[in-house]
Amino acid sequence: MGRYAVERVKSGIPGFDDLIQGGFPKGTTVLVTGPTGSGKTTFAVQFAYKGAELYNEPAVIVTLEERAQDLRKEMATFGWDLERLEREKKIAIVDGVSAVVGLPSEEQYVLEGNLNTEDFLRYIYRVVKAIDAKRLVIDSIPSIAFRLHDESRIREVLLQLNTILLEMGVASILTTEAPDPGRGKISRYGMEEYIARGVVLLDFVEKEVELKRYLLIRKMRETKHSMKKYPFEITEEGIVVYPSGEVY
Amino acid sequence: MGRYAVERVKSGIPGFDDLIQGGFPKGTTVLVTGPTGSGKTTFAVQFAYKGAELYNEPAVIVTLEERAQDLRKEMATFGWDLERLEREKKIAIVDGVSAVVGLPSEEQYVLEGNLNTEDFLRYIYRVVKAIDAKRLVIDSIPSIAFRLHDESRIREVLLQLNTILLEMGVASILTTEAPDPGRGKISRYGMEEYIARGVVLLDFVEKEVELKRYLLIRKMRETKHSMKKYPFEITEEGIVVYPSGEVY
Amino acid sequence: MGRYAVERVKSGIPGFDDLIQGGFPKGTTVLVTGPTGSGKTTFAVQFAYKGAELYNEPAVIVTLEERAQDLRKEMATFGWDLERLEREKKIAIVDGVSAVVGLPSEEQYVLEGNLNTEDFLRYIYRVVKAIDAKRLVIDSIPSIAFRLHDESRIREVLLQLNTILLEMGVASILTTEAPDPGRGKISRYGMEEYIARGVVLLDFVEKEVELKRYLLIRKMRETKHSMKKYPFEITEEGIVVYPSGEVY
Amino acid sequence: MGRYAVERVKSGIPGFDDLIQGGFPKGTTVLVTGPTGSGKTTFAVQFAYKGAELYNEPAVIVTLEERAQDLRKEMATFGWDLERLEREKKIAIVDGVSAVVGLPSEEQYVLEGNLNTEDFLRYIYRVVKAIDAKRLVIDSIPSIAFRLHDESRIREVLLQLNTILLEMGVASILTTEAPDPGRGKISRYGMEEYIARGVVLLDFVEKEVELKRYLLIRKMRETKHSMKKYPFEITEEGIVVYPSGEVY
Amino acid sequence: MGRYAVERVKSGIPGFDDLIQGGFPKGTTVLVTGPTGSGKTTFAVQFAYKGAELYNEPAVIVTLEERAQDLRKEMATFGWDLERLEREKKIAIVDGVSAVVGLPSEEQYVLEGNLNTEDFLRYIYRVVKAIDAKRLVIDSIPSIAFRLHDESRIREVLLQLNTILLEMGVASILTTEAPDPGRGKISRYGMEEYIARGVVLLDFVEKEVELKRYLLIRKMRETKHSMKKYPFEITEEGIVVYPSGEVY
Amino acid sequence: MGRYAVERVKSGIPGFDDLIQGGFPKGTTVLVTGPTGSGKTTFAVQFAYKGAELYNEPAVIVTLEERAQDLRKEMATFGWDLERLEREKKIAIVDGVSAVVGLPSEEQYVLEGNLNTEDFLRYIYRVVKAIDAKRLVIDSIPSIAFRLHDESRIREVLLQLNTILLEMGVASILTTEAPDPGRGKISRYGMEEYIARGVVLLDFVEKEVELKRYLLIRKMRETKHSMKKYPFEITEEGIVVYPSGEVY
Ligand SMILES: Nc1ncnc2c1ncn2[C@@H]1O[C@H](COP(=O)(O)OP(=O)(O)O)[C@@H](O)[C@H]1O
Ligand SMILES: Nc1ncnc2c1ncn2[C@@H]1O[C@H](COP(=O)(O)OP(=O)(O)O)[C@@H](O)[C@H]1O
Ligand SMILES: Nc1ncnc2c1ncn2[C@@H]1O[C@H](COP(=O)(O)OP(=O)(O)O)[C@@H](O)[C@H]1O
Ligand SMILES: Nc1ncnc2c1ncn2[C@@H]1O[C@H](COP(=O)(O)OP(=O)(O)O)[C@@H](O)[C@H]1O
Ligand SMILES: Nc1ncnc2c1ncn2[C@@H]1O[C@H](COP(=O)(O)OP(=O)(O)O)[C@@H](O)[C@H]1O
Ligand SMILES: Nc1ncnc2c1ncn2[C@@H]1O[C@H](COP(=O)(O)OP(=O)(O)O)[C@@H](O)[C@H]1O
Ligand SMILES: [Mg+2]
Ligand SMILES: [Mg+2]
Ligand SMILES: [Mg+2]
Ligand SMILES: [Mg+2]
Ligand SMILES: [Mg+2]
Ligand SMILES: [Mg+2]
Repeated sequence: MGRYAVERVKSGIPGFDDLIQGGFPKGTTVLVTGPTGSGKTTFAVQFAYKGAELYNEPAVIVTLEERAQDLRKEMATFGWDLERLEREKKIAIVDGVSAVVGLPSEEQYVLEGNLNTEDFLRYIYRVVKAIDAKRLVIDSIPSIAFRLHDESRIREVLLQLNTILLEMGVASILTTEAPDPGRGKISRYGMEEYIARGVVLLDFVEKEVELKRYLLIRKMRETKHSMKKYPFEITEEGIVVYPSGEVY
Repeated sequence: MGRYAVERVKSGIPGFDDLIQGGFPKGTTVLVTGPTGSGKTTFAVQFAYKGAELYNEPAVIVTLEERAQDLRKEMATFGWDLERLEREKKIAIVDGVSAVVGLPSEEQYVLEGNLNTEDFLRYIYRVVKAIDAKRLVIDSIPSIAFRLHDESRIREVLLQLNTILLEMGVASILTTEAPDPGRGKISRYGMEEYIARGVVLLDFVEKEVELKRYLLIRKMRETKHSMKKYPFEITEEGIVVYPSGEVY
Repeated sequence: MGRYAVERVKSGIPGFDDLIQGGFPKGTTVLVTGPTGSGKTTFAVQFAYKGAELYNEPAVIVTLEERAQDLRKEMATFGWDLERLEREKKIAIVDGVSAVVGLPSEEQYVLEGNLNTEDFLRYIYRVVKAIDAKRLVIDSIPSIAFRLHDESRIREVLLQLNTILLEMGVASILTTEAPDPGRGKISRYGMEEYIARGVVLLDFVEKEVELKRYLLIRKMRETKHSMKKYPFEITEEGIVVYPSGEVY
Repeated sequence: MGRYAVERVKSGIPGFDDLIQGGFPKGTTVLVTGPTGSGKTTFAVQFAYKGAELYNEPAVIVTLEERAQDLRKEMATFGWDLERLEREKKIAIVDGVSAVVGLPSEEQYVLEGNLNTEDFLRYIYRVVKAIDAKRLVIDSIPSIAFRLHDESRIREVLLQLNTILLEMGVASILTTEAPDPGRGKISRYGMEEYIARGVVLLDFVEKEVELKRYLLIRKMRETKHSMKKYPFEITEEGIVVYPSGEVY
Repeated sequence: MGRYAVERVKSGIPGFDDLIQGGFPKGTTVLVTGPTGSGKTTFAVQFAYKGAELYNEPAVIVTLEERAQDLRKEMATFGWDLERLEREKKIAIVDGVSAVVGLPSEEQYVLEGNLNTEDFLRYIYRVVKAIDAKRLVIDSIPSIAFRLHDESRIREVLLQLNTILLEMGVASILTTEAPDPGRGKISRYGMEEYIARGVVLLDFVEKEVELKRYLLIRKMRETKHSMKKYPFEITEEGIVVYPSGEVY
Repeated sequence: MGRYAVERVKSGIPGFDDLIQGGFPKGTTVLVTGPTGSGKTTFAVQFAYKGAELYNEPAVIVTLEERAQDLRKEMATFGWDLERLEREKKIAIVDGVSAVVGLPSEEQYVLEGNLNTEDFLRYIYRVVKAIDAKRLVIDSIPSIAFRLHDESRIREVLLQLNTILLEMGVASILTTEAPDPGRGKISRYGMEEYIARGVVLLDFVEKEVELKRYLLIRKMRETKHSMKKYPFEITEEGIVVYPSGEVY
């Protein structure tokens, strides 16, 4: 096994790959965490969308907090035309909300309301195969967890999810909620970060009376990476990181 | 799908729309959160009242913390004549308190004491249709939650509520309680903010020995928005935001 | 409905009414909260006593933390002769302690030991009618709550209590405990303040090695009010607020 | 009822009575609280011992944390000869420990191991009558509480205890534990201070690398009292308060 | 009972006895508490070892966190030859670990795996008698507690333990864990310190980037004692306290 | 027993052994703790790998958070060829993940999915014997704990584990999670550090907007050790400690 064999997966986030020696190590599951509105969904979808559009790596997006149609509309504000890439079989969106809330769905990929981990993984596996996906996004872990009705099993489920994603060889982004990162709580269940191979924190810092966004790579296995806080913005083209900017 | 297709809904709060590029993105559910007395009810009712009065967008107000008649009286101190707009079918108030506390109600729209999520949503749907409402206010989430007698289901219920409101196409404001925003707890259950598409925090800051009101947009999907803390006041005409003011 | 129709109820606390445009808005339930010894009982009884004595508004005092006779004796140290006003039917004290602790009572108004919300409210209603009371004091909410043997129902009970007091049209003061207001916990159950229409916080601030009393109006619906911290004292005539004083 | 009728009970603590207009108001239950080693037991026993010795007011000491014989020995280090006063029927010590720990006791007054509130109060009543006690000490509340095997009943028990002690007309001191007064937790169960009529906090403050003792009267009904922090010492004659000293 | 009758027990810790007027008051149970690695086991064993070696006071060591053989080996690094003193019947070590972890033991004194308080105390009593011990060490309370399978009984057990040790007349040291003394939590269960007659805290303070050890006597009944923080070291001869040193 | 008999085990971490008088005391179980990404797995595997490679001490690695194959690949980025040493019977990796997540495994050493402590220890014992291991790594304790389905037994299990590892005479490293060491929580369950004989904390400190790694030896029995915070790095050759560097 050679030392520098680590292949890189481009994130599709301008400025970000410079912080991690050119991209995510191949086959990595990355946890994107932060408080509400910090940009997790945008980061994750941008990773999927740009992968499909720029690097020809098809992507599956599992949306568990809003319906596929709502996500599409939202992402259109960044000029991202998910529908087109879906037609081209470069993107597949799995609607994990409609069934739970009891609304009919005309989506191609729909998760059932009553979910167990095995079925969930099997379904995802199928969709990944269907478009030969190289990337996968699951938004979000707490939305899986609350469906389990037994939160004590979360650690087990995350271990399972993480290992199987590794086995599938897709580069994955999972999102989770970090109610208060400044006080050391960087994930909803206090354990998501231990299971994932990479952890990217999106957060705010208050500067005078304004909140400023910053990004911090808390962990990224198989690679050297910066441990600085970098400013980023959510622009009308999506997330842009400023590797040379100042946070404070 | 074009990028700048986002339609705007005027908030009816002087000074506020400037912070979010002209108004709420259409079809958005916004969480208004803050500690007691911060102005949540006033913000929400002003949104409904001004919508009906100035922009000809009928509004439904679901009041779960005080009876319709008490709300009307209270809001009259701002010079808002809810009754007139009700007669004109521009406002409908759903009384969600009388039945719970065991008092008779002469209101037209009354929620039963024993509430389940499905009936609740169905009833709201009917009232929305009855006046062809374009706006909806629910004051407050904790008042729904305690009726559920199973608080563990809150996340599911909020997801359901949020999705169905999106489906109905009305612009909605939900309120929740934020016991201590300064310590990162910006909602009663620590999850309301993750489900909503927009989050507006109303809070106090202590300046010398006086509490000053400020407003912060923590999240607003589909739009660029300011992330500053803006001073606002509750005047005798309701809430006024000062986009150029200083909080500290 | 006219805008300036808000009638005022004089608090009977020297200096206080200036902070709220002349008095409590009529028909308001006010929560008086603070740590032990902050003056809640004194504030509440003074409101009742002065109402009856100065403004000819009979008052009911429901005492749930000490017996009527102990309260009378205590209040005599402020020169307040409750007994005289009781004889004149201007004050009625409901003894909510004797039965609970298993002591006989010679009081006219006595609550049973086993209390449920309906009976409690009905009894209070009767006493209010008996002396045609315009004011009501309940000292304290936690003392009701622990009798319920099901603290999860507190929110419901408070909503009920609050709505019915509004319906009865009496101006009410409820007290609750605030173990640590400086850390944002301004009530025992973290929700009393959301149900009440007004919230007055009595607290201490440490200045050098001395505790100083201050008062803050956290919320008062239907009225403009100061949001400053005002010094107050408990003198031998009861509570006196200093609207022009300095807390720090 | 006259305003200045408040009779005073001398505390027997040099320097203390000056802080409360000459002594505890008659018939008061005072909570003495503080962290371990702060001097609660010493304060309480000194109150009982000095009352009996100097003011001819017999006293009952209920010891629930150590056996009567261990307490006697300990207090002898302050030169207090409890045994002599016991022989003179001026002091009665109720041994509340021996039975619980399964040791035989040769004491005259012994509490049974299995305690319920009614028996406990009845027994105390009997001992009070036996020596016609005017003072009573119970050390400590948590030691009663853990015997109840149902800590949710503590509030009820404390209310009962407090009211019956008032009824008996003895001046009482109850002690409780305050794990961390600096963070607002001034009692073990967070409610003892609300039930008592007076609260005296004994605590430490760190000055350079040394802990200094101070005393603060947090509450004292029926009297004006200082709200300063006073230094005190535990000398070889017991507790001495320095009303003119500096804490910091 | 004379005032200066307090006999002293030498601690065997150089520098320590000066802080407490010459030694522990006879018959005292002292709690030694602190975070991991603070020196509790060393302090306790040194007290036992030096007592046996220098003052001819046999000692029993009950080891509940490691086996007797592991403790012996560890303590040999301080040059303490426990085995020799055991042969001379001046030290007896009770192995409280082997049975619990299911390993065979060749020790003379072995606790059974299934422990109840009565048997535990009876066994200790027997070993104390066997070597006519004057000192006793139990390392640690949490290791007893977790064997009880009912942590709610801890207070009762500690009271029992403490009283019976007093009755046996041995000078005892019990150890407990203090996860975070700087935030007021000086014991695992928040109550060990209230039951013990003396409390010695061993802790660290960060000075620049180095942790420094210090010792503080939080409580010591029947004696005057310093309340300063003293630096101490764990040297190759065991613990040494510097009564004239500076902590910061 | 001689005083300087302590044999040393080389850590294989450049710079580290200087801090502990030349290496870990023989037969020590060391807890390596820290937040996510702090380097625990790297530290532990480096200890095993370097032991086998440089000091001819075979090592067993029990991996409970990722599969053996994923660990191998990851560690290859440091140039460590685990496979080669496995072929040479100097390293054995026990795969504790595959069975749990339901994936087939071609590994030689595989733990079953349903684990109990006895079987777990027996299996490890066998593998240790199989390659005559002198070192052992278990990554991580929380991953054992969640399999137990009864977290209250953790203390007992850790005591068992620790004692048996001591008995086996292998030098062991166990890892655990420390969500927030800066606030005193240096382990997941708040007790791992009390059971282990040595505790090494890996953590971050924020310097300007960059996280810096540091290492602190919180406890190491049988040896003198530094108590400073040392900077360290994770380089492309693994962990390097800088004994003369500055953390702040
Ligand atoms: N079109 C847009 N232009 C600029 N900023 C936007 C746009 N759409 C969304 N945002 C920003 O992105 C935020 C939402 O990001 P999102 O990825 O949904 O966060 P999260 O998933 O962490 O809650 C909004 O609060 C807003 O600040
Ligand atoms: N007529 C009025 N004039 C000025 N301020 C008012 C008026 N009515 C209410 N307020 C202010 O509004 C506050 C209540 O706002 P509200 O919207 O009910 O808050 P919330 O719902 O967050 O508890 C009151 O505490 C008071 O400060
Ligand atoms: N006669 C008096 N003169 C001055 N101050 C008094 C008098 N009586 C009571 N106080 C003060 O009032 C406090 C008790 O106030 P109270 O209203 O009972 O507080 P709370 O109900 O918040 O516990 C006492 O602690 C004391 O400081
Ligand atoms: N004879 C004495 N001389 C001086 N100080 C003493 C003497 N006896 C006890 N003390 C002090 O009193 C403290 C114990 O006080 P105590 O009243 O038992 O406290 P608490 O009941 O709050 O735990 C001891 O820690 C010690 O500091
Ligand atoms: N031979 C020794 N020389 C110097 N220091 C030692 C020696 N042995 C142990 N120590 C120190 O003592 C600490 C362990 O003390 P210990 O009494 O076991 O603490 P605790 O019981 O509080 O966890 C070790 O972390 C180390 O710092
Ligand atoms: N090849 C590498 N070069 C430099 N740093 C690396 C390399 N591989 C991993 N790292 C660093 O090591 C960290 C992971 O360390 P790890 O031992 O897995 O931590 P833990 O087990 O505490 O979560 C990564 O976050 C990264 O910062
Ligand atoms: Mg999101
Ligand atoms: Mg409101
Ligand atoms: Mg009161
Ligand atoms: Mg005591
Ligand atoms: Mg120890
Ligand atoms: Mg790891």
